Amino acid sequence: MATKIAPLSGFPEYLPAQRMIEQQFIAKITRTFELYGFAPIETRAVEPLETLLSKGETSKEVYVLRRLQADPNDASDASLGLHFDLTVPFARYVVENAGKLQFPFRRYQIQKVWRGERPQEGRYREFTQADIDIVDRDTLGFQADIELPLVIGDALSSLPIPPVTIQVNNRKLVEGFLRGVGVPDTAAAMRAIDKLDKVGPAAAGDLIMATAGATDAQAKACLALAEISAPDAGFADAVRALGVSDPLLDEGLEELVRVVDAAAAHRPGLVVAQLKIARGLDYYTGTVYETVMKGYERSGSITSGGRYDNLASSGAERFPGNGLSIGLSRILGILFGAGALTASRQVPTCVLVAVVDEESRTASNQIAAALRARDIAAEVSPEAAKFGKQIRYADRRGIPFVWFPGADGAADEVKDIRSGDQVAADAGTWAPPADDLYPQITLA
Amino acid sequence: MATKIAPLSGFPEYLPAQRMIEQQFIAKITRTFELYGFAPIETRAVEPLETLLSKGETSKEVYVLRRLQADPNDASDASLGLHFDLTVPFARYVVENAGKLQFPFRRYQIQKVWRGERPQEGRYREFTQADIDIVDRDTLGFQADIELPLVIGDALSSLPIPPVTIQVNNRKLVEGFLRGVGVPDTAAAMRAIDKLDKVGPAAAGDLIMATAGATDAQAKACLALAEISAPDAGFADAVRALGVSDPLLDEGLEELVRVVDAAAAHRPGLVVAQLKIARGLDYYTGTVYETVMKGYERSGSITSGGRYDNLASSGAERFPGNGLSIGLSRILGILFGAGALTASRQVPTCVLVAVVDEESRTASNQIAAALRARDIAAEVSPEAAKFGKQIRYADRRGIPFVWFPGADGAADEVKDIRSGDQVAADAGTWAPPADDLYPQITLA
Repeated sequence: MATKIAPLSGFPEYLPAQRMIEQQFIAKITRTFELYGFAPIETRAVEPLETLLSKGETSKEVYVLRRLQADPNDASDASLGLHFDLTVPFARYVVENAGKLQFPFRRYQIQKVWRGERPQEGRYREFTQADIDIVDRDTLGFQADIELPLVIGDALSSLPIPPVTIQVNNRKLVEGFLRGVGVPDTAAAMRAIDKLDKVGPAAAGDLIMATAGATDAQAKACLALAEISAPDAGFADAVRALGVSDPLLDEGLEELVRVVDAAAAHRPGLVVAQLKIARGLDYYTGTVYETVMKGYERSGSITSGGRYDNLASSGAERFPGNGLSIGLSRILGILFGAGALTASRQVPTCVLVAVVDEESRTASNQIAAALRARDIAAEVSPEAAKFGKQIRYADRRGIPFVWFPGADGAADEVKDIRSGDQVAADAGTWAPPADDLYPQITLA
Repeated sequence: MATKIAPLSGFPEYLPAQRMIEQQFIAKITRTFELYGFAPIETRAVEPLETLLSKGETSKEVYVLRRLQADPNDASDASLGLHFDLTVPFARYVVENAGKLQFPFRRYQIQKVWRGERPQEGRYREFTQADIDIVDRDTLGFQADIELPLVIGDALSSLPIPPVTIQVNNRKLVEGFLRGVGVPDTAAAMRAIDKLDKVGPAAAGDLIMATAGATDAQAKACLALAEISAPDAGFADAVRALGVSDPLLDEGLEELVRVVDAAAAHRPGLVVAQLKIARGLDYYTGTVYETVMKGYERSGSITSGGRYDNLASSGAERFPGNGLSIGLSRILGILFGAGALTASRQVPTCVLVAVVDEESRTASNQIAAALRARDIAAEVSPEAAKFGKQIRYADRRGIPFVWFPGADGAADEVKDIRSGDQVAADAGTWAPPADDLYPQITLA
């Protein structure tokens, strides 16, 4: 078939070496999630439009489906769209399967999502997220708020990426503070604080006054709060020094201290209390998280989430949750874009078994089978060409070893084509150095 | 947010235990593919409609995308659809990246595909396929035809599923035979033979006469060929005994003998020459494969594919290939439907660490961290409830071990809640039996 070549903006595709890097990232993230007892689910790619639009603010970004030969009188497909995150489908899944799940339910989900964004630099229309959430019936213990950033910290530190800092705040703390200083519209003030990094403190202060009905003094107090940042519970003293008092503020302070203290004990430097982090979305009700990668702070958050006291509901039943989402495609996009990640080879193959002549191909196949039986990836040369050509086949793919079957009873030999070293070897016992068994990923 | 509960026909979703089974299947298939040196790719979920429809025969099944808030004057998204298999996107990917790939290119690809089928029993609208293909420029050695069923055989035999038989035929053999007996329309005859299992020999014979312009004697010869089946090269004698001669028939016979002989040497019983296998699709040009699972033959083929001398082309350049696709969702659908696959637990967790009281939760966290550091999945009880309740938490999820932190300097103890055995243990050295480390999948 003749095939049209059509790169599509916003739909990144990787070459095999990059896909191997992505796979290793997914495997490491998955294993960390499982070590903490999170169970896997996948949800279908589509949801009814009604479900997708229940959040109300992303309607522009949804891809709607239609069967090419749909019967105009058949409405069965008419209302399906591709999911744009993993939280909305998860909420639906929890309600749908509530009778079959054990609560609290700890799940992870690593899947593609789609957004019908206009194509532009750095905006993906298809990308992969890796989410963990803990959800319970009626009430969810605060333990979840403390544990989740530690799981994410372990997952990210298992990857060959620069060190990360998880920035934590608490919506109760901010809401209580805003009430305490008497800001009329606290939600508007929070949205203005969320824009602080983009517009700077002067404009953010103006925005607080304009949209939240705050006085100049109140706006200044908001900005003073937003400036506070500390790697330990010392942030609480800085907040109290601002002289604002409110019961919700106290509750938020106490919660945030618990998160920061536990994280400092688990992995010093992982978590920072960052009081300007507000997360734009209205449904967060307590702890909120963002994450930056050292040296790539300007690329924005690579992991975000927080506590929502009403992830889903069904009749009188309510499911509070807390969740964090790793932006896997964003991390890879940043590091691939910087040329910072490389794989040691383009194929999984560790050994190319040479073929002396077509008559003895079976002997080469048997050598490869013996290597595979001991978990060493091996392929057999497609051609009984001159050995120089077979070595080039390996070299072009980065395969480190070429195996030469011994002729007439002579021992087999294996050559490290990087060093040129060639030694006698037996396919039933030989093993490569541990670093050569799988492709190695390196961060520049 | 209030969430609508909406199961959708054709979009299967699994509970966590089933998803763990699917993940283990994918991991085992992946590792086999890698052991043979196949490199991974993923392609975007969408292709231009023009690419999707280039095969011409699946136009009814394509899901077309539209941005919900699309500008009617902006045609940029108007022509995108979800891929319905992995072969069409792979052909496009090969042409698009030909300058960056090494040929012969061995790739695997495990992804979801979508088909806008009308909902009906056993038809999926979203399902997962696991494909391997070998593609080359200009010509592809016959070695690929021999190797691919061995890879698939190894992959399937690594799974906890019933034994499989790969049924192999060769389109040159059939085409040559049809020419040799003088059937006027060989393509029509092949399509009729493809229906043999569905309609029976009498109706198939009538169909050959009606659609291929064959005489009664010619139709009988076709059916005699289609009846031939053998686990070894003996099928060739049976074909020759029919007294038909044609150069293309000889070429096909020789090729099929090579495939069957090599497979018999690799894994006796894996491959059977089955001369009624024709594969409906016109683009196959040589070896073709289907696969049945013992005891589930009536559920149809779980792995199909074959040689296509023109997978893709670009100007004067041609890319012949050979590929096989494992229908992962189909296999799981069959076995889940029969209640034949079970997981030993619903969560990855091996150990639940009990919490004595909230004051000592940190001690429980440290025990869990010590277990995780040695790759033992552990979660900490969400509540410092009575131990009986904490044990029930583990029991309801199938977690085999509960860990009790020692109070006041006493040793920790770990209980196997299935046997009730409880022993003193140290989180830095204790290990579960190997079978309990990960969830075990069992075939009934």
